[in-house]
Amino acid sequence: MSSPRDDHEAAAADIRAVEEANTAFYEALERGDLDALSALWLPGEDLTVSCVHPGWPVLSGRGEVLRSYALIMANTEYIQFFLTDVQVAMTGDTALVTCTENILSGGPAQEGDALGPLVGQLVVATNVFRNTPEGWKLWSHHGSPVLTETGEEEDEEPTS
Amino acid sequence: MSSPRDDHEAAAADIRAVEEANTAFYEALERGDLDALSALWLPGEDLTVSCVHPGWPVLSGRGEVLRSYALIMANTEYIQFFLTDVQVAMTGDTALVTCTENILSGGPAQEGDALGPLVGQLVVATNVFRNTPEGWKLWSHHGSPVLTETGEEEDEEPTS
Repeated sequence: MSSPRDDHEAAAADIRAVEEANTAFYEALERGDLDALSALWLPGEDLTVSCVHPGWPVLSGRGEVLRSYALIMANTEYIQFFLTDVQVAMTGDTALVTCTENILSGGPAQEGDALGPLVGQLVVATNVFRNTPEGWKLWSHHGSPVLTETGEEEDEEPTS
Repeated sequence: MSSPRDDHEAAAADIRAVEEANTAFYEALERGDLDALSALWLPGEDLTVSCVHPGWPVLSGRGEVLRSYALIMANTEYIQFFLTDVQVAMTGDTALVTCTENILSGGPAQEGDALGPLVGQLVVATNVFRNTPEGWKLWSHHGSPVLTETGEEEDEEPTS
């Protein structure tokens, strides 16, 4: 039987591993590395993965999710994520990460320009990971725009 | 040892129970029943709950989450959810539900009116449930506005 101290250390190691998987996810996006990104999503079809990009409907299954990232990468010349408020909650083989994505991105170059215009975005994400023999893998990503603090929206009090 | 048939039936029963918990969550919101809603969120502080309302930043912990619902209920005279595309993925004690919330809601009555103006909203949600001795309880809710199909937004291709 393990001691409380061992349990505590094992839990801390798990949280570090989840944080690393979460960071690796955003680094793969920054590099536009679809192979690395694919490897970070849960394999197989038994445990169907799902993904919501900011403002998008739900995408389900590896095929649909990975195709969406290929499309986004093709239309993104430059993207950088500054993560803040990273919080990890976990139990057994499931971990739930919430974080704020402070995004700076640019589209493909327009005629005569070296880079498309840079755009800042504030997005919050809930990322659910599963522990597998190959490490922590993404089961679900849900990103959404933060509108309440910018004053850009008329309706600042969403109803659900 | 259980037979494959038993396993299959147990899994089907679990999925039904998760769907019922998911439905109960929206029914509690429709009734403005904060007690019922509180009972549907995971108790205790070990496994920190989190919640993102459409356009909001992340809320963490039962206190912050339940206060937000009290505020929303106080400002909502009428709300109805028509759920579509409900999908359940599960493993062991964790279930992940994605659904589309077709929302019709109205604010408090304005001077001389019986009811505030009704507003339609299209929101997608990822709801994560944990199995407990008291049934399936919400660990995380993340709702976000669907903007891509309405043509209301200039930037129809979010970058993450």
